[in-house]
Amino acid sequence: MDSAFINPFLQTVSHVLATMAQTECVPGELSLKKSATATGDVTGIIGMSSPQGKGSFAISFSEEVVLAISERMLGEATAEIDSTIADLVGEVTNMIIGGAKSLLESTGYDFDLATPVVIRGKDHKIDHQTKNATLLIPFSCEFGTFFIEVSFEPTDLGAS
Amino acid sequence: MDSAFINPFLQTVSHVLATMAQTECVPGELSLKKSATATGDVTGIIGMSSPQGKGSFAISFSEEVVLAISERMLGEATAEIDSTIADLVGEVTNMIIGGAKSLLESTGYDFDLATPVVIRGKDHKIDHQTKNATLLIPFSCEFGTFFIEVSFEPTDLGAS
Repeated sequence: MDSAFINPFLQTVSHVLATMAQTECVPGELSLKKSATATGDVTGIIGMSSPQGKGSFAISFSEEVVLAISERMLGEATAEIDSTIADLVGEVTNMIIGGAKSLLESTGYDFDLATPVVIRGKDHKIDHQTKNATLLIPFSCEFGTFFIEVSFEPTDLGAS
Repeated sequence: MDSAFINPFLQTVSHVLATMAQTECVPGELSLKKSATATGDVTGIIGMSSPQGKGSFAISFSEEVVLAISERMLGEATAEIDSTIADLVGEVTNMIIGGAKSLLESTGYDFDLATPVVIRGKDHKIDHQTKNATLLIPFSCEFGTFFIEVSFEPTDLGAS
């Protein structure tokens, strides 16, 4: 997965969090996710398909971080990850994937997007089921660390 | 969501489980999922997009049921939900969505599929983020009950 593919996600995550939660997010070191090691308490997932390939995107937060972000966005505190928080994570997922899709169009990717699914549950693990490696990228903000995962499987043009 | 849309999923789930795990699955009563009430220990999720609309499909198992199914499929027991079980759920998800896609083509839906994502974690909840209701369908088999969820948002042809 080259940087031209991943940079739009990095830019859009920072832009969405800056706009929606007035917080600066800094991406950390990218790594290849070898197994479902990272865990989150709430995760937004969305599928992507295009003539160039297909894949999946996830953004995952701990309870501490998502409650701080939601308090900033909604102007009031929430005690736990409830359906309001799930909807908020779904909306953030949609905004990020929409922004990344627009940026990726200029580099030749023409994605159709599915609808997001949000998972709630303490310390769940995420396994992307593509043939290629999944990229794991942590982001640091004033509230703590969250992470995104991007998995992409290019179309096999040699396939019958 | 009409029965012409949902029936291909019901048929394919039963067919895939019969073929892969030699077990008969019987769909129970369909309901509109009002909130993320159902929980699972491992869930396969995949996104769908088409000119006719977009959505998401999930199949979710308890640990007890998925370990019994995997033992039947793999010929050996597994003690817990590990990466092998996650891959198996991803494969089952792919087979079901592939079968449903083929059946739906004959009724005018032309879906592009994303890649599956599998979630592992005790009693996690699933929220589909579409404007329309999510259908929740339980299936009974000799190992117990599991469920699928289908969410679909038709394209708004009146949208600008």
